[in-house]
Amino acid sequence: MKFQEFYQNEFDGFEEYGLNLIAPKSGTVIEEAMSYSLTAGGKRLRPMLLLAVIKAYGKDLVQGYPAAAALEYIHTYSLIHDDLPAMDNDDLRRGKPTSHIKYSESTAILAGDALLTKAFELITIGNLSAEKKVTLIRELAICSGYEGMIGGQQADIDGENNSLSIDELEAIHARKTGELLRFSMFAGGIIADADKESLTLLEDVARKIGVAYQIRDDLLDVVGDAEELGKATGADNKLGKSTYPALLGLDPAFEKLSSELEKAKENVSKISDKSPSFDEEILLTFIDSLSITNDR
Amino acid sequence: MKFQEFYQNEFDGFEEYGLNLIAPKSGTVIEEAMSYSLTAGGKRLRPMLLLAVIKAYGKDLVQGYPAAAALEYIHTYSLIHDDLPAMDNDDLRRGKPTSHIKYSESTAILAGDALLTKAFELITIGNLSAEKKVTLIRELAICSGYEGMIGGQQADIDGENNSLSIDELEAIHARKTGELLRFSMFAGGIIADADKESLTLLEDVARKIGVAYQIRDDLLDVVGDAEELGKATGADNKLGKSTYPALLGLDPAFEKLSSELEKAKENVSKISDKSPSFDEEILLTFIDSLSITNDR
Repeated sequence: MKFQEFYQNEFDGFEEYGLNLIAPKSGTVIEEAMSYSLTAGGKRLRPMLLLAVIKAYGKDLVQGYPAAAALEYIHTYSLIHDDLPAMDNDDLRRGKPTSHIKYSESTAILAGDALLTKAFELITIGNLSAEKKVTLIRELAICSGYEGMIGGQQADIDGENNSLSIDELEAIHARKTGELLRFSMFAGGIIADADKESLTLLEDVARKIGVAYQIRDDLLDVVGDAEELGKATGADNKLGKSTYPALLGLDPAFEKLSSELEKAKENVSKISDKSPSFDEEILLTFIDSLSITNDR
Repeated sequence: MKFQEFYQNEFDGFEEYGLNLIAPKSGTVIEEAMSYSLTAGGKRLRPMLLLAVIKAYGKDLVQGYPAAAALEYIHTYSLIHDDLPAMDNDDLRRGKPTSHIKYSESTAILAGDALLTKAFELITIGNLSAEKKVTLIRELAICSGYEGMIGGQQADIDGENNSLSIDELEAIHARKTGELLRFSMFAGGIIADADKESLTLLEDVARKIGVAYQIRDDLLDVVGDAEELGKATGADNKLGKSTYPALLGLDPAFEKLSSELEKAKENVSKISDKSPSFDEEILLTFIDSLSITNDR
């Protein structure tokens, strides 16, 4: 099954589950603010990738819903806090006012805190074994904590006005965005009872997808259009941030994107070699969808 | 055993455990900021209460260390975020510069996020069964989330310039500070294998301690001295916040404090009646320590 078909088939089911979880009950502003940011039109990339791994193993997707929703909650809280005046100071996100603009700065801080907290509660629900839940909670905390996403965000802020080497840039992105992607594929593997070696391969695929995703984002920022990104192109350049095209040059950046995607696909095939029933097409077609042509 | 003796005997052991957990490894500013706030001289009241319940049941305290540390991490993150300019805008906490003054606003936001995240990771470590860990994680998330502490903080901000009824005031405090206290005694009970009825009694004791604690704090704010509180007395009045003495009058507030403490002690004795080996003295002496004399 192609990823695009899987996504079309399964998006609504997961979305309905997620929206029911967060439907405001008491009507407080904090619940409203949580719901506002969760329903701001995200593509649910990370949770759908988690579910895609479960699908590739032929297991029941619903088992993965709580962890997938938790992942989206963590991603959403990180966007709310990143947008704050003290951080990136963004007024718009996906064309809508950011949380602190729509509500207030204090509500945005608290709504972020509440989404982060709720994420861990979500993993405790559902039918997985207690052992699996504990494994997922530990890994989610590590991936999204100071050794992962939060540490990456801090390093990103610190590096904003410095020129970074390509290795420094990669280390920041690996934490800031790569670790949550790693969790999505690791969690899918855990839930689907993947063996240890396949788990390691899945994590490696996720890392390469993460690097590819960042290069793609940087490239679209230069060659793409504002509509596709939902923000002004060239924004990172204006802030003096280091990007792949700025550091490598445009053609080498395109080449690096292709090579990361190729390596990711090779590792997917290795998983498939170990488990013949593994439906590699779903991951291979996802990886292919990240490719962009250098048609300058 | 008296609570004071227990505290003296056990404080250093827990403190050493907690400090080793957070000793900065990579030397990043985010780890330094986490450590700065954790070591700012807190009394570790909540974790010591959690451990006191385990002690009263005669069980091994070390089993409770991870959950007790998690509780302190949650408490500490909530102080960092509450002190932010967009929230209470405090420059000093326990006589030291608050996190956003010492570092920066963005670092304070991220350090808070990181402590919150790490709290859930902490509960996954140690020798408890996976089932107990999942129970503790779920309950900690609920107590500290939008239905608990965070919701209380939001309601507190919303009510800052309104005059509240005594019921509204109590509902806010029950969430803002009461829910974490409830977790401390609930978690101690879960770890010590308390039966269901005793767990309910422990939670009820915690709720009454929470109310008593708030009245005590409000009273000391009026009759106490600045040194004992580490902040300027009368601060809540200046902000126009509702307090127990303001709403009830001073003498009735003293009476309510005594009556909450009495009811808490009655429930402790009920636990003791059910489990004769339960060392009630440790909790009774703690409750007594919250009493203040109306010697005006």
